[in-house]
Amino acid sequence: MLQINAERLENRLKALAQIGRSEKGNGWTRPSFTPQYHEARDLVASWMREAGMQVRVDTVGNLIGRLEGTDPQAPVVAMGSHIDTVINGGMFDGAAGTMTGLEVAQTISEAGLPHRHPIEVIAVVEEEGARFGEGLMGSKTMAGLYTDPEALFAKKAYDGHTIGEVFREYGFEPDRIGESVRPKGYYKCYFELHIEQCHVLDSTGDVLGIVEGIASLIWLRGHVKGKAAHAGATPMAFRKDAFIPVAMIAKEAEEIAKAVSDNTVATLGKLQLSPNIPNAIPGEVEFTFDVRGLHMEDVEKVAALISERFRQICREREIDGEIEQTLYLLGAEVSDEMKDLVEEAVKKVGVPYRRMMSGAGHDAQMMARITDIGMIFVPSIDGVSHVPEENTKFCDIASGAQAMLNVVQTKIG
Amino acid sequence: MLQINAERLENRLKALAQIGRSEKGNGWTRPSFTPQYHEARDLVASWMREAGMQVRVDTVGNLIGRLEGTDPQAPVVAMGSHIDTVINGGMFDGAAGTMTGLEVAQTISEAGLPHRHPIEVIAVVEEEGARFGEGLMGSKTMAGLYTDPEALFAKKAYDGHTIGEVFREYGFEPDRIGESVRPKGYYKCYFELHIEQCHVLDSTGDVLGIVEGIASLIWLRGHVKGKAAHAGATPMAFRKDAFIPVAMIAKEAEEIAKAVSDNTVATLGKLQLSPNIPNAIPGEVEFTFDVRGLHMEDVEKVAALISERFRQICREREIDGEIEQTLYLLGAEVSDEMKDLVEEAVKKVGVPYRRMMSGAGHDAQMMARITDIGMIFVPSIDGVSHVPEENTKFCDIASGAQAMLNVVQTKIG
Repeated sequence: MLQINAERLENRLKALAQIGRSEKGNGWTRPSFTPQYHEARDLVASWMREAGMQVRVDTVGNLIGRLEGTDPQAPVVAMGSHIDTVINGGMFDGAAGTMTGLEVAQTISEAGLPHRHPIEVIAVVEEEGARFGEGLMGSKTMAGLYTDPEALFAKKAYDGHTIGEVFREYGFEPDRIGESVRPKGYYKCYFELHIEQCHVLDSTGDVLGIVEGIASLIWLRGHVKGKAAHAGATPMAFRKDAFIPVAMIAKEAEEIAKAVSDNTVATLGKLQLSPNIPNAIPGEVEFTFDVRGLHMEDVEKVAALISERFRQICREREIDGEIEQTLYLLGAEVSDEMKDLVEEAVKKVGVPYRRMMSGAGHDAQMMARITDIGMIFVPSIDGVSHVPEENTKFCDIASGAQAMLNVVQTKIG
Repeated sequence: MLQINAERLENRLKALAQIGRSEKGNGWTRPSFTPQYHEARDLVASWMREAGMQVRVDTVGNLIGRLEGTDPQAPVVAMGSHIDTVINGGMFDGAAGTMTGLEVAQTISEAGLPHRHPIEVIAVVEEEGARFGEGLMGSKTMAGLYTDPEALFAKKAYDGHTIGEVFREYGFEPDRIGESVRPKGYYKCYFELHIEQCHVLDSTGDVLGIVEGIASLIWLRGHVKGKAAHAGATPMAFRKDAFIPVAMIAKEAEEIAKAVSDNTVATLGKLQLSPNIPNAIPGEVEFTFDVRGLHMEDVEKVAALISERFRQICREREIDGEIEQTLYLLGAEVSDEMKDLVEEAVKKVGVPYRRMMSGAGHDAQMMARITDIGMIFVPSIDGVSHVPEENTKFCDIASGAQAMLNVVQTKIG
């Protein structure tokens, strides 16, 4: 069995982590379209060349290394992830998957393994959205999802400049974004390894996760208008406390999510009381629900049950309450064939594993619009990500990379 | 029946409202120990003199107008409230009661009504605590509650200066605060009219409230430490959502308060989730409860039941939760005799009324430590106070002032 080079993989992750690292311990800040990002991209490009790959940057900023196949016209077997980070993020989110793709390609290249299908490793640009607020931008572009590029380029980034202006500053031409759309049939499949970003693997002791799908998502935003009043002077019977209906639906949403399916979740994550002082009855409350699940029909069901029950509570308490959908995002399911192939590849590594859903979004989700996808998760210690403390054992990433090498071999022949 | 002069009362309230009024519609800002406050105090002092009263300012800043009785040594029948405001407050809170006291005294004075007991009208200083963060300072001083004046004067006001420094700036000597303590027996009784600051009277259509007592108060502060995690990536069974126990206790506290007594209330008024973003499970939550009631033993019971149940919920959910008492403030009950006397006086006015608790604190609560108290409430339109929109009909204040005149007459003879 062909083996990846775990030491090289670890060294490259550590070398990449020298770029954009805070000297004050505030983690890594390497958003796309920044000098730090380009320094990282150039370093990865140099490693791609060392691995024998042809390197190019497409018109939106995705970095692609290609190992030519014996049939250059055959559909491409791709691996990818991203090397941009959030502000003050960690060193593994995205980097682990990108370095894994590179390691797998280099192992195949150095072994002189013949392969009919070309292999591409992609460092997808602006996955985090930390530069433009436009998450998954690189993969959305490849999947042809920007049907109105003018609107995209007119959008203002956090620094006040439009995305179009930043593009030009870095030598990209907004007019040419269409050249980065991959035609259907261009890819044979797309694999991505990623840190789990939660503590399921860390809690269960499993080393690898076989991703069954990337969650579909609905966001709800609610608002209650009651009557702010003096907390001491207002008898219970005279109150219109805007918070109680929200407290009630938060608890009940937990039950609703559990009842609909094992893989649906609902979270009241953001909440603002007004006036939010100890001696006033809350007069207004705003809140959000994040609802996710493997199947959109389940997600819709949970969102509808929460909304209906919330409205019912407000009616019963004779208080004004509104709840509306603010985001509807279809996820991606992994085909049975791909799940089985990944599982076979994982089994050969000999570590404990589990099938699981990805609750977070990933580039693979966009790539699923144009090709088959497969995903492997590695554990996040304590489940944290997007913070300096984000951590994964290098040996676990190596296990994931070995599984990736195993599954890629089944597709490139 | 002797009648107050409703027109004069209204005109004085309007004249007083010229001072500290925002030209931009942001209400009234007239905290004690400010030029605006002293302008208002001087105006009220001039009216006191016009009413035939001797005027003095005690060593802490309370303004006192005195109508001498035929027996100058007899205990004083006092009326009072305050003329300081919160920042951007309303024109009635405090002012209505102070002008009522003045109007009642002037009516008695002008009628030449003989009275054995001296009558004092007090504009109590720093009731709101908007200048020093030291609410009820004037009445606490009179009641002799500052057993450690040095600590008081070392306390920093909001502008960074110590209370002692501000005192000296305005010509007061911190060393002399003791001279403002009223000896036991100095007062025969203390009456206060105040706006209700809630919407009970406004909702029921009653014009006057006979205050049965000023609520006793316990504040609780709670903290839950769960585990912040990605809202999508964390299955329900793997969560330690810090918000759910708080949501549960907020709802249950409503039931607990209702069950213990008709006059106990519990309010979760302040709440902060962390990280408080739509796609993260709340990892930490801080919250407060304000618990009040006419009888401290009921307040203690509600606070204990909330705390016990909250701890139980946290234990059941295996999540770290703490709740502690941060404030314990004994209120004041009005004696049956004084309630009955006020009720008789109110009945003679011929407007609808009700007996009720004061949930908010008032100077009368401190005066209750050294004398009998009686309080009359007038309606707050829409129940609002401490805001520019604070409003009460002048005719309702006149009804209250007439009731005050009626009851004061029963005590001064």
